[in-house]
Amino acid sequence: MTTEEGRQDRGTDREDGDFEEYADLGATTENAMDIAETSMDRVRKLVPDETLADRIRQKSVHATGDPEFQHLVRFTGETAEEPVVAGARAVLEERPIVTDITMVKAGITGRGHDCPVEKAIGNGAELAARTGMTRTAASVLELDRRGVYDGAIAVVGNAPTAALALADCIEDGTRPAVVVATPVGFVKAAESRKRLRDVAGEHGVPAITNVGRRGGSGLAAGLTNELVHVASDARSGEVDLP
Amino acid sequence: MTTEEGRQDRGTDREDGDFEEYADLGATTENAMDIAETSMDRVRKLVPDETLADRIRQKSVHATGDPEFQHLVRFTGETAEEPVVAGARAVLEERPIVTDITMVKAGITGRGHDCPVEKAIGNGAELAARTGMTRTAASVLELDRRGVYDGAIAVVGNAPTAALALADCIEDGTRPAVVVATPVGFVKAAESRKRLRDVAGEHGVPAITNVGRRGGSGLAAGLTNELVHVASDARSGEVDLP
Repeated sequence: MTTEEGRQDRGTDREDGDFEEYADLGATTENAMDIAETSMDRVRKLVPDETLADRIRQKSVHATGDPEFQHLVRFTGETAEEPVVAGARAVLEERPIVTDITMVKAGITGRGHDCPVEKAIGNGAELAARTGMTRTAASVLELDRRGVYDGAIAVVGNAPTAALALADCIEDGTRPAVVVATPVGFVKAAESRKRLRDVAGEHGVPAITNVGRRGGSGLAAGLTNELVHVASDARSGEVDLP
Repeated sequence: MTTEEGRQDRGTDREDGDFEEYADLGATTENAMDIAETSMDRVRKLVPDETLADRIRQKSVHATGDPEFQHLVRFTGETAEEPVVAGARAVLEERPIVTDITMVKAGITGRGHDCPVEKAIGNGAELAARTGMTRTAASVLELDRRGVYDGAIAVVGNAPTAALALADCIEDGTRPAVVVATPVGFVKAAESRKRLRDVAGEHGVPAITNVGRRGGSGLAAGLTNELVHVASDARSGEVDLP
């Protein structure tokens, strides 16, 4: 253990040059921007960089740290680009981004968009208590009852039951602008995404999901943030949305 | 699109039996508890269930949805159990849980512990602006300057530079009760965990990390939550902490 005086010497009193190694993604400092580019450059060597769908595939690799993940992403729409374009347009139109849980909401970037960001969890407690369904599923149904999901960017990162509830809402007539769903786990995660793909495909709702048991909150937030980045590039004229 | 009247028929007016499929982890309802057990039962068939370290390995599989992840977890200490015991004891002593970013903090369970939960990000802005280091690294150094990390459960889920900064703090004399570090990515993530293992090992700080590029906020939160669960089991007498 060090003394309080010793502690005063740390951090702020170091030579600035000592800090060059501290740089990374998501930070706003100059050094951090450089490293963020380095990281995406490495990903672009591992994943094709030709289409808007490729940008989502790249982000999936970036978020999971696994080059193989690019092959696990699924796009529901007339083309693979459709859900990316729909998502970027929804960002430009400042539609709400609605996440299943707090953790996914916390991962949504605050920059590059003016969309309200809302989480479902915390709503529908009475419904959960009465029916025994999960709090996340009840929260999705409760927000849907209020019309929150129509035209929204609907994001499910954690809870398979939230994905199942969202699929039911779509079947019942709700039309999100786009769905991003990557719940993780051994019980119902893959099945819930499969059902969401089936229902979304049937009802013309664009969706970005993955196959397999993997996924999670970080992936869902990362893919949603990439929709924001595509929207930013469209705003600046770097990307043409078809 | 549906009418407002149609919307009223959804959710709360369904037959309760329709909701049996909505059940999952982390929820507090009866149905959800059953499914959480089912999920962990499946994981226990894939991962040994003999030691406290196995519980962390199991949780890594549960959090990532990948049975192979059990082989990527590393335990720094005299034994593989040491960081798990140190973490559980720290939970019982109500030590602060200090995360790197908001997303990891959002993933820490609110049940089974009375530890304050704090995030580093948001601190050290002046240091970041002056030096060009990342905001996350600066935030770790700033909290360390205030003595926050001594005796704490130090969790890094996202930022390699936060892990590098934490390693420097340990080298400079800071002694967390335990470190949980699983930053993800292609730039410095694996290297930062390696450095943390080296420094933690050298200075007798117990640590739970992983090898490879994978990891992330969900994993870090999940492993920390498992320390909380071990502590709960110790409190109830189900587990003896050596």
